[in-house]
Amino acid sequence: MKIAIDGMGGDHAPLEIVKGAVAAAREYGTGIILVGPEEVMKQELTRYDCSALDIEIVHTDEYLIEGEQPALALRKKRNASIAVATRLVKEGKADAVVGAGPTGGVVVAALQYLGTVEGISRPVTGGAFLGFAPQTLMMDLGGNVDCKPEQLLDFAVVGTVYARKMFGIANPTVAILSNGAEEGKGNQQVKDTYPLLKESGLNYIGNVEGYDIPYGRANVIICDGFVGNITVKCCEALGKNICRWMEDKLAGKIAEGELSAMVNELYRATNMADTNGGGTLWAVNGVACVAHGRCKAPEITGVIGQAKAAVESNIVEAVKQELAAYRQRSLQRKEE
Amino acid sequence: MKIAIDGMGGDHAPLEIVKGAVAAAREYGTGIILVGPEEVMKQELTRYDCSALDIEIVHTDEYLIEGEQPALALRKKRNASIAVATRLVKEGKADAVVGAGPTGGVVVAALQYLGTVEGISRPVTGGAFLGFAPQTLMMDLGGNVDCKPEQLLDFAVVGTVYARKMFGIANPTVAILSNGAEEGKGNQQVKDTYPLLKESGLNYIGNVEGYDIPYGRANVIICDGFVGNITVKCCEALGKNICRWMEDKLAGKIAEGELSAMVNELYRATNMADTNGGGTLWAVNGVACVAHGRCKAPEITGVIGQAKAAVESNIVEAVKQELAAYRQRSLQRKEE
Repeated sequence: MKIAIDGMGGDHAPLEIVKGAVAAAREYGTGIILVGPEEVMKQELTRYDCSALDIEIVHTDEYLIEGEQPALALRKKRNASIAVATRLVKEGKADAVVGAGPTGGVVVAALQYLGTVEGISRPVTGGAFLGFAPQTLMMDLGGNVDCKPEQLLDFAVVGTVYARKMFGIANPTVAILSNGAEEGKGNQQVKDTYPLLKESGLNYIGNVEGYDIPYGRANVIICDGFVGNITVKCCEALGKNICRWMEDKLAGKIAEGELSAMVNELYRATNMADTNGGGTLWAVNGVACVAHGRCKAPEITGVIGQAKAAVESNIVEAVKQELAAYRQRSLQRKEE
Repeated sequence: MKIAIDGMGGDHAPLEIVKGAVAAAREYGTGIILVGPEEVMKQELTRYDCSALDIEIVHTDEYLIEGEQPALALRKKRNASIAVATRLVKEGKADAVVGAGPTGGVVVAALQYLGTVEGISRPVTGGAFLGFAPQTLMMDLGGNVDCKPEQLLDFAVVGTVYARKMFGIANPTVAILSNGAEEGKGNQQVKDTYPLLKESGLNYIGNVEGYDIPYGRANVIICDGFVGNITVKCCEALGKNICRWMEDKLAGKIAEGELSAMVNELYRATNMADTNGGGTLWAVNGVACVAHGRCKAPEITGVIGQAKAAVESNIVEAVKQELAAYRQRSLQRKEE
């Protein structure tokens, strides 16, 4: 397996990116293709003993800069490192691409060179985000706002495949997030989506409310990216506030090491996206992973691990087949 | 001041309602009108020494039952205790009404007998909901979903009056909740509301994201009731999960009393709506407060205290004037 890494993406590129990639090559035994200016990449690699590792460099001089409008920048810089890295997947020379930002650049490159799975217009982001509900994923958490009912249904199918492949759950429960658990509660979007889900053949259990999220009352909770993003970020900040409050409250009362272990555990449980360093862009026609711009080497290694897992579980193919099968079934139902 | 209480509303009526009302009469020195079957109310009052208190009974045999469709039930039972209590406000015999459920019954009675402030079609719910951000209120948190931009603007005006009167802030900052803090980020609803807020003359500071809520980055955060409800309930459940986790982690490590004080503090900080027992229905043409159905006496007393504060600050009149003045200003701007 070969994973292409944008060696110039992220706040701490190239140092931390290359360091994280080298660690991934060592830890997972995967091949790494570093994309960036050859001299810079070579220089970075001299810091480590790479003799036993499968690391190659693909040269390009161009790369994106934080603050550029990604679509525009990628039109001007056709050989930006993220574009070259993504094309390696398209050309079959790499199995996955990992970029640490700008996020928009990774998304636009994925859209441009890999495209999305048939019938889905934009990448979908989502995953488990609370340690208290490790087998609950929420989708979409990002850029898909004002979603149509059919889009939410797509999230449900993608999420079901994800939960099956990544959580190992045979028949994941699916719910739609609403302002009340009873059928009939919700905004127009929820009301319009409800019947589609009911007839979808998925393991649909109805509405869940905000209260149900941390209790993990469904494996796949689907929502518009607007509410998903707000909910996740609010939980992250609440978690951070509680960590600080706990530090104040317990300082001097329990051993320092114990306290910092507790704080770290709570931080991880409430800031999973941050701890994980990033995630996969689902519904892309290939494995593309975004790491947060602020990631350092350990998180980069982690995101490369996520890319590896996505490749190994052949999740892109599974999403495609599942979506096609679902569309076929719903077509048959309409004809009946 | 006289506050009318539905003596038969709530899971623990009449016992806990009457107990809470008696405590409120004693604690705040307010007059209490208990509405319900006279014999039942009298019987309950014999439990307490009410000799020095201003408590009267207004008799009615009818009352709503949990599970009834409130609008329908109130058409059939014109003399349901919540209807009679609300009419006392309408008739000027009481200054406020407090009911502990069914919530829909309190809302429908308020709408039917008091009506809403001109130009607002439904009551608005909202308030501070995180102890970490005690001077941040979010609005709407309840039943107003699929809000039009003009409705969100109304929430901003109502919230500004609320923050001024209840938090004592002269010029409260107002923000709209979105999936990103930058201007231009958001769903269609946010994008359509942004210019209205910008020109509103309110102390509008732009978008805030979910992350900003627990940090209290604005005094008034406005949102559709759909996202507001989900966010608040998710925070509540997350808080409860963390309380339980903290109990497990710290059991035997710090004194039991200290631990339970910490857990209580965190519970209160993350479950304020529950701790407060309920809240005011804003934008109603009179003071109407809903207590949660599960409330016991102390919370009932607390909600009666909220009703008293709303009457004393003359918030209904302030909301009316502020909304009228705002509409006048925006009319003038349009004419210019």
